[in-house]
Formats: sequence, C-alpha cells, structure tokens
Amino acid sequence: MTDRPARTPGREILFNAFDMNCVAHQSPGLWRHPDDRARTYTTLGYWTDLARTLERGLFDGLFLADVLGTYDVYGATNEGPLRTGAQVPVNDPILLVSAMAAVTEHLGFGVTAGTAYEHPYPFARRLATLDHLTEGRVGWNVVTGYLPSAAQNLGHRDQMSHDERYDHADEYLEVIYKLLEGSWEDDAVLDDGEKGFVDPAKVHAINHHGRWFDVPGIAITEPSPQRMPVVYQAGTSPRGVTFAGENAEAVFISSPTVGIMRDSVRKVRAAALAAGRDPQAIRVFAMNTIITAATDEEAWAKFEEYRRYADPEGALVLLSGWTGVDLSRFDLDEPVGNVESNAIRSAVETILGARREDGRPWTVRDFSEYIGVGGFGPILVGSGATVARRLAALQDETDVDGFNLAYAITPGTFEDIVEFVVPELQKLGRYKTAYTPGTLRHKLFGRGDRLPTEHRGSRFRIGGDLSTASDRLESITSQLAGIARP
Amino acid sequence: MTDRPARTPGREILFNAFDMNCVAHQSPGLWRHPDDRARTYTTLGYWTDLARTLERGLFDGLFLADVLGTYDVYGATNEGPLRTGAQVPVNDPILLVSAMAAVTEHLGFGVTAGTAYEHPYPFARRLATLDHLTEGRVGWNVVTGYLPSAAQNLGHRDQMSHDERYDHADEYLEVIYKLLEGSWEDDAVLDDGEKGFVDPAKVHAINHHGRWFDVPGIAITEPSPQRMPVVYQAGTSPRGVTFAGENAEAVFISSPTVGIMRDSVRKVRAAALAAGRDPQAIRVFAMNTIITAATDEEAWAKFEEYRRYADPEGALVLLSGWTGVDLSRFDLDEPVGNVESNAIRSAVETILGARREDGRPWTVRDFSEYIGVGGFGPILVGSGATVARRLAALQDETDVDGFNLAYAITPGTFEDIVEFVVPELQKLGRYKTAYTPGTLRHKLFGRGDRLPTEHRGSRFRIGGDLSTASDRLESITSQLAGIARP
Repeated sequence: MTDRPARTPGREILFNAFDMNCVAHQSPGLWRHPDDRARTYTTLGYWTDLARTLERGLFDGLFLADVLGTYDVYGATNEGPLRTGAQVPVNDPILLVSAMAAVTEHLGFGVTAGTAYEHPYPFARRLATLDHLTEGRVGWNVVTGYLPSAAQNLGHRDQMSHDERYDHADEYLEVIYKLLEGSWEDDAVLDDGEKGFVDPAKVHAINHHGRWFDVPGIAITEPSPQRMPVVYQAGTSPRGVTFAGENAEAVFISSPTVGIMRDSVRKVRAAALAAGRDPQAIRVFAMNTIITAATDEEAWAKFEEYRRYADPEGALVLLSGWTGVDLSRFDLDEPVGNVESNAIRSAVETILGARREDGRPWTVRDFSEYIGVGGFGPILVGSGATVARRLAALQDETDVDGFNLAYAITPGTFEDIVEFVVPELQKLGRYKTAYTPGTLRHKLFGRGDRLPTEHRGSRFRIGGDLSTASDRLESITSQLAGIARP
Repeated sequence: MTDRPARTPGREILFNAFDMNCVAHQSPGLWRHPDDRARTYTTLGYWTDLARTLERGLFDGLFLADVLGTYDVYGATNEGPLRTGAQVPVNDPILLVSAMAAVTEHLGFGVTAGTAYEHPYPFARRLATLDHLTEGRVGWNVVTGYLPSAAQNLGHRDQMSHDERYDHADEYLEVIYKLLEGSWEDDAVLDDGEKGFVDPAKVHAINHHGRWFDVPGIAITEPSPQRMPVVYQAGTSPRGVTFAGENAEAVFISSPTVGIMRDSVRKVRAAALAAGRDPQAIRVFAMNTIITAATDEEAWAKFEEYRRYADPEGALVLLSGWTGVDLSRFDLDEPVGNVESNAIRSAVETILGARREDGRPWTVRDFSEYIGVGGFGPILVGSGATVARRLAALQDETDVDGFNLAYAITPGTFEDIVEFVVPELQKLGRYKTAYTPGTLRHKLFGRGDRLPTEHRGSRFRIGGDLSTASDRLESITSQLAGIARP
C-alpha cells in the first residue's frame, strides 16, 4: 500500500467522454441543433474525429453506452422513442473501437456489453481481440440488462429478477476471468521456429462447470497487454454496489447534489474494502454535462440556446425507461409529486428539490425540461475557469476521481471542454499535461498493466491467491489500521 | 434478365484475399519464414497495411475466415494445434473491419460468423452497423459451425446434426432478413426537426415466432446502404448447396482439378436456378494460392523456398480438423490409401491422383507436404503472365467468377499478386482497371445496392413477393427457355 500516491485533495481530475452509437443519447432533441453532428453517428468520420479531439484534450477515455432494446415504457409503444430518436435507432458500439484506435495512441475505450446477451466464450475473445488491437486501451462496462424489450427479442419471456441477474453476471465474469487470466500463462507464446509457436504445457483448459455455463476448454486467444480489460460498472443498488466492490475498477455514478455524490463515492470505496481491496482501487466518475465558452455570459447564453432545442417528449421517453414508470399517463402540468413511484418521488426530492426555489410545485413538464439537456446528471455552466474551479471543488468535497462528460451537442460540447476547461484545470495543477505511457489500467492506477493481486479476477490465474474475500478484508483492514496509527 | 451482361468467356476475373485473424491460416509453418508478418496479426498496422495493398490491387474483397474452437481432432488434444499455431490462437474477425474501412474506399469485407454462436437479434445489429460504417462494403460468410470443440465451449454437449444445423441456419437467416429488410421502410428516417427523427408508422415489429427463435419486436437499426449485407457461403454438401442456392450471393469452392471446379460451379448455378434465381446471381470464387515473381524461374524458386518452411505436423492438424479423421494414428510413411476415411480417400483420388506421377503410393507425409503451402486449394506458380493466362483459362473452362486467394506468406503473397499478376490480367482485358463506384453488392453485380427481388431475403420486405420458390422457378425457367429459342 505504501508505494501508492495518497488520494489527497488537489489531485488530478480524470475525464471520460460519454457517448452512444445513436442520435439522442442524454440530450433528446439536440440533434436538431444546427451545430450538432450526432446524426452522422453512422459514419466512421464522426468517430475518428471525436477520438482525435478527445486525445487532443488528454481525455482518459471514451465511454460508449449501449442498449439492445427500445424505451417502449413510455406509452407502451415505440412511437415516442422513434419520433424523438431517444436511443433508437442504435448501432453496435464495439465495432467502432478499432477505427478510433487506429487514429489515436493513448485514448482509452470503455465499451458497454450486457452479460445477458452473448455467451462469455465468444465475448472473451472479443475483449482479448480489442485489447490486442488497442495495445491495452480497452475497458468493458458490465451491464446486466435493464430494458424488457431487449430480453423479449432475445427470446426470454422476462428478464431475470434483479438479484438473479447479478448472480448470473458473477458467473459470467468468472468465466471471462478464467479464460483471460487463467488459461494461458504469460510466457505460453514462444514464437520460436524450433520449439513451436505456443508451448502447449502452458495453456490450460479452464474446466468451468457452473449453474449457467459449461466451458471445459482452453481460451483460443493469446495473452493481450492487459489480459482482463479494465472493468467498468454503474450499478447503484445494494447488490450492484457489492458487485462493483468485487469487480469494478471504474464506477460511474450520477449524483445531482454534492451530498449524494459524496455518499456514492464513499459507498463504492466501502464496497471495495469489503471485498478485500484498496478503497482507492476503484476510480469513481460522476456524470456531468459541461456547457462552457470564453466567458460565463457566453456559456449561459449557449445553455439557454441549447434548452430551446430540448425535446420534452424525448426526455419523458428516457425518464420512463430509466424509472420503469410510464409518464405518458400524466398530464404535463400535473405536479410530479402526484406520480406514484418511489423512483420518481426520490428524484423529485433530491434532484428537483435541490434546484427549484420559487415555491411552485414541480410539474412533469418541469422535470422533462430539467433532463432535456444532459439527462439525469448535473449541469455545470460557465467559463473554463469557472467550471475548472467548480470541478476541483467537487472533487475535494466528494473524493470523486473524475467526471463522465455527457454532451449537449456533439462533438461541440467536447470541443468546448478541450478548448476552455482543460487549460484552466491544468493551470490549477488539477489535470495531466501529458499522457502516462502504457495501458489504460496503468494510466488509471500507475501500477502496471494487470489486475492487482487483490482483485477478484486475479484469483483465477494459474497459481492465483484463492484466499477468501474475508481473509483479505481482515488483512487489508489491519494494514489500514497500522497506517492510521503512526 | 435481358439487362444483364452475358456471362461469356473473356469476362473480368474477381479477386478475394483469404486471411484469418491468426498466425497460421492455410500455410502452417510459414509464420517461420523471415518475410512473413502473420505474427503481427494482433496489431492494427498489419490489417490496415493489408487493406491498402489489396485496394491498390483493385481486389474486390478481403475474406476473413474464422473458427471459434481448436483443431483438437489430431491426437484428441490441443498440443498439435498450439505447437504449430494452426488456426489457434485466433482473434475475432469482425472487430478488424472498421479500422480497415477507415483507410480504404472500395475494398469489400467478407466476415465469417457462425449461426450457432450468437443470437440473431444482436448479430443483425452488428451487420447493420458494419454496413453503415463501411458505406455498404460488407458481406457475411454464413457458417453453421463444424468444430466440436467450439460447440462444447458454448455449452452444447454436441453439435446439431449436419442437416439440422442447416434448418437452424435457415431460420436464423429468416430472422436476419426480417430485421434488416422487413422492419424499417426505406424512408422511415425523416431527420426532420418538426416531424421527428423517425416516422413510427414506417417501422414494423417483425413478430417472428419459429422453432428456434422468438423475436417479436422491431429492428433497432436504421436502414443501411445495402440493408442485408452480401451473403457468402462455402458449403459443398447437398444440403449446403441447396442453402447456397437460396441464400448465397458469393460462394467459395475449393477444387483441386479443372473438372471438379467446373462441376462445382455448375452445381452452385443449378442450385440458384432451383431456388428461382438467375444462375449468374451467385459469384463463385475458387480457392487458389498463387506464388509469383518476375519470371517463372524465380517463382518456382520462391515456391521451393516456401516449401522448406512448411510444417507437416501443422498440415496434419488442419487436415484432421477438416476431415474429422485423427491422422496422428498413422505413421507418416504409411500409404495414405490405408487411412479408412471416405473424405481422405476421396481427397487422395482427386487431389493427389491428379499430381503424382512416379508410381510410388502417396504417404501421409506426402499429403501433409502437399497441403503445407496453401492448404487444400490448388497452387499456381509462375510469372505474372503465366499465372494470368492460367487464371483466364481456368475461368473460361469452368465458368468460375473469381478466385479466393490464400497466402503462403503474408502480406508478401498478396503484394506479389498485386505487382505481377494484376497488371498481366489487365493487359489481357481480364481484370478491372478501376473500381465501380458504390456498394459491394453493386460492384459484384452492377444491379444496385439491394438484394434482387428474386432473392429469398427480399420476400421478407414490407410488401415483399411471397410467391414460393417453385412458382418462381417455373417463371424463370420459362424465361430462360424463351431466351434459348430465338
């Protein structure tokens, strides 16, 4: 532990760009803005240009969200999603990576893929392939699936229950870890004209026989720079946070207030500790939408202009999907407090309660306008210097590691951040001025390319540490206690 | 029919490059040759350089083979495959495409994917995504899976029987056709700030309920340039040829003699006719390995040099996988006629019988050496002029449309073909001198971007022709009869 940099206030802030292979990701309606290029999501040029812009701004990664279904909760039909383009049509994210990797050298790529949608054997090969092609710059955002329409089109009558989905994901990851960490020894590839290409004695069948999967054989991919790509996760339920504590190396949170953000970060670190890991072994990224310009006034003018393009119907479509509540059943002028849903009520109390001050009750329309730019996440508006100071303060107050930046318009929002915010953060000493060489994992943690030994995945290595999580928790807790008492 | 160019002798020859995301595709052992770069298959640079080379040579496509298992038939172990690198390790092919598409403008990409390995709903989205990103330059090589090790690692105790695999593939393609051809009308996307992004009235649920798949919903991808990518296929069994007749637009054959090549081409065209299609609506590519240089002598010297690097064990590993016969049970000096296997016996009679002239019986070793360079396919050795004349004659004698070119070393074999053979074919008027603009399908057939109306897939369009194959067979036969009698 002592060789790690201390996680003190004043440390560097990490940036992820948050995008999706569709026209309307988090800011429904903004595809209608004349400067928005989201409609070119079907072209390679959109993605290679975006990747170059992000690398110019020293972003740590591009995080690609995904769904494999439609937001047909709103009105129980696809009409709203289709009309507003709300995350449909949506193309495959993983197929974008190699083109972007070819035009960049350092940018990381976090790709979303669901554990309910593909067998882990071919998926492990996809991860290994991307890790090879990107020279170790790939991460996997693990989702267990949440849109019922996706499950139906894959032939499942219903989704599994929430907790069962995580049990299934646990085993899915176990298979992936075994294939990528436990099948081929590091020096299995000889590439030797005399001895052969691979030493067969150093490649092992994983013999996995579980509740959901039987995978007797060897991995068919050779070791890649990171072996297991960096594991991303975004669950906030108790079961989701436990899963993150055991598996995640980067966690995305969406917190409307400083207090909630601080709590969320603390919960994630506690979950890591409970799983026998260093609490700082997870990088926590808070979702945020930044509207910036040369001055505060210009930034606010830009924000007001963007708001005029926001699409309340699209916002309600997304919100209905996220909460599972069909908001088409409510009048737009109905006070949102009337909507009988814990998810909505909790959102009203925390998100909206924190913002509105004129006493008038929030209506469904207000809510839809609130999330019309930047979705559920908070919005920061201001000059580069204003935004940089606010981000630095947010990090100091919450212990968050970085921000997952959604766009209002694309790539304009990202170009603005690179132009106005990054230099101001650098002036504050709160942002890198050059990339660390090496893999995504090494860039994020500075501890090499591979999963650390205390991570669950490393237990599945040949000769891995099979001690239980509680053993390791005891050991790490006593180490931390030792540090606290000089 | 009358607007089609006649398929007369003297037409232009098509070229596909045949590669795989591994070190030893068809020429085991050649990865040890000092000029071979196959070992860099894990890097983007290998693939983008190769794509540029092929486009410089006006190749129609790059065909990427794939397996999702190991050739563990030989000795019932992975030792042989691993030691010789025979198609293992092997990375995912589909993830290579976007990087290669970004550095080319015309080259087509034929990607192998098995119908047994992924649910058609996410796979349809992968096809649509690639067709968008490549601007219509993608083809799908449909395989039903043949390595038992792949089936086992996907949790199936055994593969389905051969014919059942094709029944399953039939339904798999039906789902793909419905999603890509029958869900979104051509003008469903409005991209209109007032009316919306999509017209929901023009997007239809496919309501597929079959023996293997239930897919009630809409496709989540918008129409791409070709909609259904070009369908490639390589089956040679009676059931495989029927499947090709109904679905394939390009068929790969592997024919050791002129006679067999002619028969294979005829069979494929007859299968198209039987499915109610124009017999010329399938482009037939014969596998071939070309060793060429400035002169015949240099080409033969090169061939002899390559042969010295061939790896008999790797050849036997591949051959055992292809035939299902464990050739490790035989002494290398055993006459190959002693091997009790129809597949082997047939190969001996047709392939070897056609080559060996000294009367000595072919041994297992001879056979392994024969396929050590270029696998099962025939080899043409000679100067560019020699090879060009031979290819032209082969086309005239067999009605084949083009050649699927395996490599001895990569990218050297392809560079040699571009340098020596392409200009000579052009001199003969037997090779394009510029690409036709447009999609891969339009380049191959000159009839536009979409599946022709007589193709099975077009029946699943909104308002598609639901007449049966036999109706259409009758109609097309009478048309052909009309043409034959002037």
